[in-house]
Amino acid sequence: MKNKLYMGCFITLEGIEGVGKSTQLAFISDYLKQKNIPVTITREPGGTPISEAIRQLLLAPALTQEKISAETELLLFFAARAQHIDTVIRPALRRGDWVICDRFTEASYAYQGGGRGIDVAFIRDLQQWIQKDLTVDCVLLLDAPVELALGRTRCRHQPDRIEAETQAFFNRARATYLARAKQKANRYHIIDASLSVPEVTSQIQHVLERLIRLVY
Amino acid sequence: MKNKLYMGCFITLEGIEGVGKSTQLAFISDYLKQKNIPVTITREPGGTPISEAIRQLLLAPALTQEKISAETELLLFFAARAQHIDTVIRPALRRGDWVICDRFTEASYAYQGGGRGIDVAFIRDLQQWIQKDLTVDCVLLLDAPVELALGRTRCRHQPDRIEAETQAFFNRARATYLARAKQKANRYHIIDASLSVPEVTSQIQHVLERLIRLVY
Repeated sequence: MKNKLYMGCFITLEGIEGVGKSTQLAFISDYLKQKNIPVTITREPGGTPISEAIRQLLLAPALTQEKISAETELLLFFAARAQHIDTVIRPALRRGDWVICDRFTEASYAYQGGGRGIDVAFIRDLQQWIQKDLTVDCVLLLDAPVELALGRTRCRHQPDRIEAETQAFFNRARATYLARAKQKANRYHIIDASLSVPEVTSQIQHVLERLIRLVY
Repeated sequence: MKNKLYMGCFITLEGIEGVGKSTQLAFISDYLKQKNIPVTITREPGGTPISEAIRQLLLAPALTQEKISAETELLLFFAARAQHIDTVIRPALRRGDWVICDRFTEASYAYQGGGRGIDVAFIRDLQQWIQKDLTVDCVLLLDAPVELALGRTRCRHQPDRIEAETQAFFNRARATYLARAKQKANRYHIIDASLSVPEVTSQIQHVLERLIRLVY
């Protein structure tokens, strides 16, 4: 399980909008710190000043009247990711931190692959060129029905460009996440995010306990 | 020679900083208009509002203290290019325009491949995914010794992030351009840009005359 080339452990939180990633990210951070495990918390797209500037381009509801093409969107996500890996993720793993990242490459498969219909082979090529030896140790997929999850986001804030997508788009993204979780069952953990916050937390704690036993 | 899938003709101007691309772009535009050929003039990175926003990220001398990684730079160039192709280049070629573009994919080979040392296979993968059936009919490579070309730019303006690179970087970029011109001699035309403006213009006019005879 342990990432051979690095000392730290790389955990990503995945899932569509409204499944409660932010809340659980805070729980994971607190839980690991209690165990005296050094933690780096970060997010995609973003995590560095340049990648956050790319995030602005990607998520601004109406930067211009121009529609961003699906391929441009995918390449911007990977541009931000390349910078994030070099500047934040690899250095943190090398110094032994556990890196907890709010979304990573699996989101490109779900959103740009499943959601927008981009050829999976293109995403896989980009992943190999950019990640090289870097692999995720544990993907926590927070899963809930689309209607339930989107219902939770509606009361929060003005939706960004991707949050404003159709329900059909999120259905395709969710289906892609679930299909990949089946294919990669050794790394993916499906968390039932339709339950209450304490129940979701408890499922995640269970996964973290097993992971700590494996690593230490 | 004619681009089979499109009516228009796709010409790109390539070369390092200071070889006189802007001056010659204006000449080409005027020359083709005199021949009643519909022309779209554009540039990379840029050409659309989103791609111009990406250009800002790429060229701002010091957006942040953070160094943009070579791979992030390459992906940003291709993100801008994908948008530019979809929004400007393909529609213009389809309606029969001749598209004259100040730099295109050959610049990625020269600058990110030669200059930064990125694996050429990565650039080729990106080119195939993004360009698909789109090929350049004629690459006009304005070539001059690096010292001469850079000397011309020094008196112009504050250099952008890439213009501020070392002479060794531009030597590698120029060498890559020349090597690719040899490999792709049917599309590349090397223009001696160390000569006076009228002499450079005359070489380009000669290439355009041949191109017009081939196309019409």
